[in-house]
Amino acid sequence: MSMVGPSRPPALLSLLLVVAVSFFCSAIPIDDIRNRLLVKEKKMQLGGQLVLKKQEMKANEKLMALKNAEITEAMKTQKFPPSMHFFQAKSLIEKSQVFAILKKMPKGAALHVHDFSILSGDWLLKNVTYRPYCHFCITPKGAIQFKFAHPTPPTPKPTECSEWVLLEKYRKQLQNVTEFDDRLLKNFTLMTENPELVYANQDAIWSKFESIFFTISGLVHYAPVFKDYIFQCLQEFYQDNVFYLELRATFFPVYEVDGTVHSREWVVETYRSMAYEFAKDHPGFVGMKIIYTDHRTKNVSLIAQSVKEAMKLQAQFPKTMVGFDLVGREDTGHSLHDYQEALLIPTLQGTKLPYFFHAGETDWQGTSADTNLLDALVFNSTRIGHGFALGKHPAVMEYFRKNDIPIEVCPISNQVLKLVSDLRNHPAAALMASGHPMVISSDDPGIFGSKGLSYDFYEAFMGIGGMKADLKTLKQLAINSIKYSTLSQTDKMDFMQAWEERWNKFIDDLSKRP
Amino acid sequence: MSMVGPSRPPALLSLLLVVAVSFFCSAIPIDDIRNRLLVKEKKMQLGGQLVLKKQEMKANEKLMALKNAEITEAMKTQKFPPSMHFFQAKSLIEKSQVFAILKKMPKGAALHVHDFSILSGDWLLKNVTYRPYCHFCITPKGAIQFKFAHPTPPTPKPTECSEWVLLEKYRKQLQNVTEFDDRLLKNFTLMTENPELVYANQDAIWSKFESIFFTISGLVHYAPVFKDYIFQCLQEFYQDNVFYLELRATFFPVYEVDGTVHSREWVVETYRSMAYEFAKDHPGFVGMKIIYTDHRTKNVSLIAQSVKEAMKLQAQFPKTMVGFDLVGREDTGHSLHDYQEALLIPTLQGTKLPYFFHAGETDWQGTSADTNLLDALVFNSTRIGHGFALGKHPAVMEYFRKNDIPIEVCPISNQVLKLVSDLRNHPAAALMASGHPMVISSDDPGIFGSKGLSYDFYEAFMGIGGMKADLKTLKQLAINSIKYSTLSQTDKMDFMQAWEERWNKFIDDLSKRP
Repeated sequence: MSMVGPSRPPALLSLLLVVAVSFFCSAIPIDDIRNRLLVKEKKMQLGGQLVLKKQEMKANEKLMALKNAEITEAMKTQKFPPSMHFFQAKSLIEKSQVFAILKKMPKGAALHVHDFSILSGDWLLKNVTYRPYCHFCITPKGAIQFKFAHPTPPTPKPTECSEWVLLEKYRKQLQNVTEFDDRLLKNFTLMTENPELVYANQDAIWSKFESIFFTISGLVHYAPVFKDYIFQCLQEFYQDNVFYLELRATFFPVYEVDGTVHSREWVVETYRSMAYEFAKDHPGFVGMKIIYTDHRTKNVSLIAQSVKEAMKLQAQFPKTMVGFDLVGREDTGHSLHDYQEALLIPTLQGTKLPYFFHAGETDWQGTSADTNLLDALVFNSTRIGHGFALGKHPAVMEYFRKNDIPIEVCPISNQVLKLVSDLRNHPAAALMASGHPMVISSDDPGIFGSKGLSYDFYEAFMGIGGMKADLKTLKQLAINSIKYSTLSQTDKMDFMQAWEERWNKFIDDLSKRP
Repeated sequence: MSMVGPSRPPALLSLLLVVAVSFFCSAIPIDDIRNRLLVKEKKMQLGGQLVLKKQEMKANEKLMALKNAEITEAMKTQKFPPSMHFFQAKSLIEKSQVFAILKKMPKGAALHVHDFSILSGDWLLKNVTYRPYCHFCITPKGAIQFKFAHPTPPTPKPTECSEWVLLEKYRKQLQNVTEFDDRLLKNFTLMTENPELVYANQDAIWSKFESIFFTISGLVHYAPVFKDYIFQCLQEFYQDNVFYLELRATFFPVYEVDGTVHSREWVVETYRSMAYEFAKDHPGFVGMKIIYTDHRTKNVSLIAQSVKEAMKLQAQFPKTMVGFDLVGREDTGHSLHDYQEALLIPTLQGTKLPYFFHAGETDWQGTSADTNLLDALVFNSTRIGHGFALGKHPAVMEYFRKNDIPIEVCPISNQVLKLVSDLRNHPAAALMASGHPMVISSDDPGIFGSKGLSYDFYEAFMGIGGMKADLKTLKQLAINSIKYSTLSQTDKMDFMQAWEERWNKFIDDLSKRP
């Protein structure tokens, strides 16, 4: 590429040239060079290699006109949702026309979501805590625990919890149930009006985050709720035009009202059959698969047991149980390196247990959480959960790119958990600009106050992608979610075909917008 | 690089292997692969190609022990200065032992600093506003303006300013001068206790930022102050172990108490002679050069005039006047593209006027401020001011890298002007990890409440570089500041040699720390 500037010798007499600057501007191919650069970068960005059909180009024009108008307006008001905390941006996002389009867009699959953080606290409050036999107790630290049981179970040790109180009975003697329910709801969500003040740092937000899982555990692992939860979860993603899920599941024991505890096989079988049943009444729904997860606070021998358990379940349910991952805060938990003995078991046994490791979900550089990215490579992870720190690892990044190993980007999660405040600065912006393999997911939408994938797609499209991301970017993200799933090649092709039909319908509607 | 994991076939009977997992962990070269990756990334990072001498290795150990201790402590307290707003982090930084070392380190040159935002408001208050003949007036919008004059000048038009009040006389009739001075000081600095609340968005902070330049203009362009300012500026950088500066100068008219206005030639000559005088009493001081700047709010024909003026001054003072740049907020000002006719003048005249463009000092993507990065390339910019958005431009980034065009990273500036809140997320982190050419500078230290380069070096070393950045990184940054200066090859070699002597002394002291 030739450049103008100091290194370029003069071509004509300078006097003449000064007089005719404006004429010669067009003679020096400034705009040519500039346009070539623009086109080059446009091709490098995520989706830049796609070629849009005529109808898609028309739809893209409509979409980009709306997007540009919304961004231009935000520049004036200095209120740009991706730059604001999601809790404060949510209502603005819901007014966005781009968001309305993203909701209608067939988005493919959700590849990074956790089993019991998908539905809203409101759903839990209204659909679960009002069921019969729901008891609660208060731990010495003030946390609420729930248990469905009949009859009322014996009082726990005082070091564990207070006596079990039947919620139905307790509510009856309250003067203001709404007030109680409002307070209860606060235990199910991170949402608050002033997140910056309430959660001073990552320790504070993670502490509350983990406490939510502790609190809702007794609710969601009650077998009837467990099943309804799965159904409702599939329903919400389906309504959000997401037709396939890979769920990271914790395998906490599922119990019945009489105290019976189900086996892990029962759990997988329930997931499998629920998805199967759901598919019957929901055309186009592709299914759900499970990634076995355990918590990174545990010691290596417990993780070794879980790896073996995952292998066993995978052998029993090869189409449903598809891999293994570790959950919990990387900054404070064990690293993949700490677990290396456990993680080598499948290889040493000659078994394939695909890994889907969370790695680099951190702002720190050079810590074990950061180095998890290297270990995710070493342990041949199939996809990378978050990979927030990937940009700081050029060698790992290059390897993932060459080997087509995608990162699962969860914008709202990263913002709410205080990794980044302004999503225009999300490190995935650089990766999206260079076409690095990625999918967009929502991690724990129920706890963050979002739903399905559309809110995260909005943040990715408007904030991370900026003005340059267009319909090609969106199309590529949807295609990626199918491509990088664990579905078989045949199933992927079927899914892609079904998705494409919906996509064409979506494009048709979009291009015909007034 | 060979990988373990699903794609690796079993080597021995699985049963035997399970029993002996811990034995075989060492047989599978997990740690080998991991270490090779670590070493590879270590070599890729900024300074990774440098080879430390024995003494330097010892010094590095001391430095890294302190650094690791400070970071480990910060992880516990969740109070890590680079993650906090600089105004709140400053006192913490000043307690840091790493910072104390960085102050002593010979840092080379400051390549991105603006003429009248280098000294603190406190210096202006105490050393300037108490001088005789200092008048002030208040504009209709409530801004303060200053003018040194004798006798008191006539009252300006009411649309411009109130009548001129002699500050000396005004202070005499005040009951509480300290209170007045405290309020006055607030007009000279962005510093405040609650920056997040006071400056709601980038509009707010830029508005205050520009108002400071407006207010101090009458003070610093008074010829005697102008000279003292330059001297004090050289003094502060010298004390901070910075021995050479390239100053972006605005060429606002410099005046005398009788109203005489000096020519631009006088200004350049004053810079030149001040630096010359300073060098006499300050061993090791290399000098100061000037980059002509104009404001990007102006129209193209005014900028064309400035380009010609810069060319003229460059011809007259080839060793002092070294290039041209545009200042002011990129998001709201004219783009380089808008100015293309003006910027082509030197080329069309067959003259070399090196450009040092601010480009990509923005969070927005796809706007004209963002696209300035492309135009900086097209117009053959010698260095890039900030280049904050560079990571989002893979093609431009690659070109700059290949052609060794550095970005001038100003961490505190980017944080205070609200481009990024947590400096661990500064986009230069990825660039530093991959060894992209860069220098560290302080932009407007006086207005941000910092001094010299050490505070910005602290943020870059601790925050942007993370735990991985070490003595090699620091050494490379110092070397870069010499390498990417506009000094002649001979002058660079002399500077490098003088710097190296100081560096060796610094290393000697550091390695002998108890």
